[in-house]
Amino acid sequence: MTRNILIITGDYTEDYETYAVKQMLQLVGYNVHLVSPGKKCGDFIVTAVHDFLPGEQTYTELKGHRIEINFDFDKVDTANYHGLFLPGGRCSEFLRLNDRVIEIVKEFDTKKKPIAAVCHGTQVLTAANVVKGVKCTAYPACKPEVSQAGGIYQDIAVDDAVVDQHIVSGKAWPCHPKLIQLFISLLGTKITHN
Amino acid sequence: MTRNILIITGDYTEDYETYAVKQMLQLVGYNVHLVSPGKKCGDFIVTAVHDFLPGEQTYTELKGHRIEINFDFDKVDTANYHGLFLPGGRCSEFLRLNDRVIEIVKEFDTKKKPIAAVCHGTQVLTAANVVKGVKCTAYPACKPEVSQAGGIYQDIAVDDAVVDQHIVSGKAWPCHPKLIQLFISLLGTKITHN
Amino acid sequence: MTRNILIITGDYTEDYETYAVKQMLQLVGYNVHLVSPGKKCGDFIVTAVHDFLPGEQTYTELKGHRIEINFDFDKVDTANYHGLFLPGGRCSEFLRLNDRVIEIVKEFDTKKKPIAAVCHGTQVLTAANVVKGVKCTAYPACKPEVSQAGGIYQDIAVDDAVVDQHIVSGKAWPCHPKLIQLFISLLGTKITHN
Amino acid sequence: MTRNILIITGDYTEDYETYAVKQMLQLVGYNVHLVSPGKKCGDFIVTAVHDFLPGEQTYTELKGHRIEINFDFDKVDTANYHGLFLPGGRCSEFLRLNDRVIEIVKEFDTKKKPIAAVCHGTQVLTAANVVKGVKCTAYPACKPEVSQAGGIYQDIAVDDAVVDQHIVSGKAWPCHPKLIQLFISLLGTKITHN
Amino acid sequence: MTRNILIITGDYTEDYETYAVKQMLQLVGYNVHLVSPGKKCGDFIVTAVHDFLPGEQTYTELKGHRIEINFDFDKVDTANYHGLFLPGGRCSEFLRLNDRVIEIVKEFDTKKKPIAAVCHGTQVLTAANVVKGVKCTAYPACKPEVSQAGGIYQDIAVDDAVVDQHIVSGKAWPCHPKLIQLFISLLGTKITHN
Amino acid sequence: MTRNILIITGDYTEDYETYAVKQMLQLVGYNVHLVSPGKKCGDFIVTAVHDFLPGEQTYTELKGHRIEINFDFDKVDTANYHGLFLPGGRCSEFLRLNDRVIEIVKEFDTKKKPIAAVCHGTQVLTAANVVKGVKCTAYPACKPEVSQAGGIYQDIAVDDAVVDQHIVSGKAWPCHPKLIQLFISLLGTKITHN
Repeated sequence: MTRNILIITGDYTEDYETYAVKQMLQLVGYNVHLVSPGKKCGDFIVTAVHDFLPGEQTYTELKGHRIEINFDFDKVDTANYHGLFLPGGRCSEFLRLNDRVIEIVKEFDTKKKPIAAVCHGTQVLTAANVVKGVKCTAYPACKPEVSQAGGIYQDIAVDDAVVDQHIVSGKAWPCHPKLIQLFISLLGTKITHN
Repeated sequence: MTRNILIITGDYTEDYETYAVKQMLQLVGYNVHLVSPGKKCGDFIVTAVHDFLPGEQTYTELKGHRIEINFDFDKVDTANYHGLFLPGGRCSEFLRLNDRVIEIVKEFDTKKKPIAAVCHGTQVLTAANVVKGVKCTAYPACKPEVSQAGGIYQDIAVDDAVVDQHIVSGKAWPCHPKLIQLFISLLGTKITHN
Repeated sequence: MTRNILIITGDYTEDYETYAVKQMLQLVGYNVHLVSPGKKCGDFIVTAVHDFLPGEQTYTELKGHRIEINFDFDKVDTANYHGLFLPGGRCSEFLRLNDRVIEIVKEFDTKKKPIAAVCHGTQVLTAANVVKGVKCTAYPACKPEVSQAGGIYQDIAVDDAVVDQHIVSGKAWPCHPKLIQLFISLLGTKITHN
Repeated sequence: MTRNILIITGDYTEDYETYAVKQMLQLVGYNVHLVSPGKKCGDFIVTAVHDFLPGEQTYTELKGHRIEINFDFDKVDTANYHGLFLPGGRCSEFLRLNDRVIEIVKEFDTKKKPIAAVCHGTQVLTAANVVKGVKCTAYPACKPEVSQAGGIYQDIAVDDAVVDQHIVSGKAWPCHPKLIQLFISLLGTKITHN
Repeated sequence: MTRNILIITGDYTEDYETYAVKQMLQLVGYNVHLVSPGKKCGDFIVTAVHDFLPGEQTYTELKGHRIEINFDFDKVDTANYHGLFLPGGRCSEFLRLNDRVIEIVKEFDTKKKPIAAVCHGTQVLTAANVVKGVKCTAYPACKPEVSQAGGIYQDIAVDDAVVDQHIVSGKAWPCHPKLIQLFISLLGTKITHN
Repeated sequence: MTRNILIITGDYTEDYETYAVKQMLQLVGYNVHLVSPGKKCGDFIVTAVHDFLPGEQTYTELKGHRIEINFDFDKVDTANYHGLFLPGGRCSEFLRLNDRVIEIVKEFDTKKKPIAAVCHGTQVLTAANVVKGVKCTAYPACKPEVSQAGGIYQDIAVDDAVVDQHIVSGKAWPCHPKLIQLFISLLGTKITHN
């Protein structure tokens, strides 16, 4: 069986958080399905470039790449996937309203399959009510959601990540290397050098 | 005594939600202080234009007007204000992390002074823990925060607003006329026509 | 009878000058019809954000919100309106070429119904030839049109407004609160506070 | 003596209308001074790209090239120039407020030296009161200014131009080839082919 | 017979390098055909504004004007043209892959008809293999292509141009006046002043 | 010894091609130095988002993330690195003009250390004259440079990559997973799954 990962994304996801992660997972041998509610294989999502400009209180937003969806959301069967990845950006706040998205998250959680989330992606975990008593992190501005959902917010470095049981999380895209290392480690992937 | 209203805003607030509301309140006779953590009178904030494009799953973001802050955040004394307004946009998620912002909200709440919030502005109310048992609304994607904070989310029309005790709220900028009517009604303002 | 106001607008109107004014008028109880030549209820106009950047000789322009037209231009009957508002931005220069727009302005003027204009909106008044001997103002760069049309240009503060008979005018969007106060005062609206 | 042409321009001039014209005049052997009030040789102006998008009522605006000013405005002596060119875009409306700009235009006019204007550039001519009884044209939305100033507006094709005595004018940048042919013809330039 | 010039352009050509040059050639009496592979008369190309911002290692890119194609590419017969112009920008790198584009360049070269290229436009000449032993120039970053194709790269001033036999070239759009003077001089055009 | 990779990048590199690749290499255990001529650790580069819009002949360009340089270019000693990566975008055309960049490439090549290039990155390889007789690829529009430099251009799928001796290359960012798999395979990295 191929090693499949599901990424649930949507319009105005952070560009890196969907696409760079997809490529990182492909690099180490995973087959990645990018899905989004209401979209089918071959559809596109628009993305946001979130970056920090000196002197501004929060990130700025620019338009990023269009990203192609490569699997129908309606055909997702969680039994076919080894793990779930939840990117951040502005998609997370509306993805968490979708019943099927929440159901998918819960199915992964119930079976203790690895779940990784970055930035606002953790908002989907809090809405799915799967972080109670779990040490996790998120974009700092999402700390209130984590706390209200009973998660134990970890104030780690922006390029670090935290794992608790089968849930891995990081604050923003600089954490990707560490976040995905922890994620694929849970999935049983090993990297060695001569 | 002049009739003062406090608006707590910040970078990437929705342009209309800070400035159109400021002008609406000025129109009916209020003196409005626009403040933002770390900013002084004469500083500027940058804003976001949030709009909906056909075929996209959520709002798009463009750069809006720069808006001038007209009072030092550090000098805010809640005793001087009759009401508080919390605009939405992307500022709300970080404003709620600021201890003094939360303290200000609680001071208004404790004294039952009118508070109005639009869109993501309700996120500041939920973080301040003042919506327990309160019928209120917010941008639909923020419904989870309202529920987790014990608020009773009202799924009203986008141009409608809801009042419960001293708290008025609406979903997005189309609600401004109704929202501010309810707000100034709490504040004791009456409008009559010949 | 409902209290109706007509706003004639168009593509690249200044965003605030059409939409913030619409909401201000709705706030104090008016039913507002946004119309534009060639457009019907449900069509959209695109808008311009006009702002000042340090070091530039004039305003810069960004894209603003799309605004929905809510009444067919072709169905406008001036008998149904208590007042007329003319926003500025780049729409004014072409709106003044439209014969029906000019006719509408003249009908309001003849009946001495209140007319308000902001910024380049005054260009429509000068083209309609209704400012002869009238004290009025406009975006400063439009002073030549005012003078050539026989108006008496008032060099007031940017947040002030001027009224002469039934015509109210201001220089740019910071004047809205004062401008609309004068306008609704002509219309017979009173605001009182407890 | 070198053959000098003066171009008075400013921020948000239409990009082509300042720079393409400058290069056209240089091509046929003129030394061109680009000047702007308050600016010195080596300063830059920002420009606007004005273009038409299908379905919009007027031109859209994008940012264009920065253009370098190559002569100090304060050092302009009209005795040194054979002709004057006035580009359009959004600079024209504020350039006409500058007393020295108006004085310069009048000096060229009084001496019957060739003057060419394109698009909104004609607004500077009308403000300088030099088009009375003159057949001229402008961007169509500026027809009211032409008429109010006593000019005889010519509704010609967008790629055509009109000359009356020493004044040449066109409606918009597609007219440049014809406009500059007429202008340099007045200046005594001849083009021949083997 | 009319004096015809062919310009081969495409999407993301530098705005000035296609349109300002077209107008310069029209000014001095040429009939200019703008063509692009796959496009017909009445189609449009999108363009790029390439400019330099302080502190950046290379030019920045903005969107420029849409430019209308005025002749079908498929109908080009080189016998009908006196000269060929190749603009720069990002179109050059893909235009040189088109067999018919290369064939057209070779036909002009074989007959020693004047060819002018600016900026990246020289990439089309190097791909067509017509610069062997020819003194020519290009945008500095294209020097490697010139050298690899056997051309003798000329490191001239940015507003200068170089001619060798029937080939004229320049580094970037500031060279247009000199470049087109050399080009039309080859074509037999003379400019005189009274 | 840590496993170090050098990435030579610059302003207007394609955003993904520098940053996603950096994170992919970090994921599998490499320490990555991002360097750029004239820049030091802590400086930033600006990037370009290159994407394809329906109906356009080539990629469009938007602004991407600012990326932080994390090592001084002037301190690069090729002895410290196991491999070299050359991203594409618009930086490649000017990087190849820098003598030290070319020298660095040649040092890696001489020692047969793995070199990977994507998109326009191959332009640096052709300028360094290291592709003679080498099967390699590049962004299709760069095929002429590959051929003129004696490389054997491989017209492979856009998500594929090609390796010949110690040189790996791909056409554009969709190739990253395959490209980096081949690159790290040369470097001696193995990935296994339980």
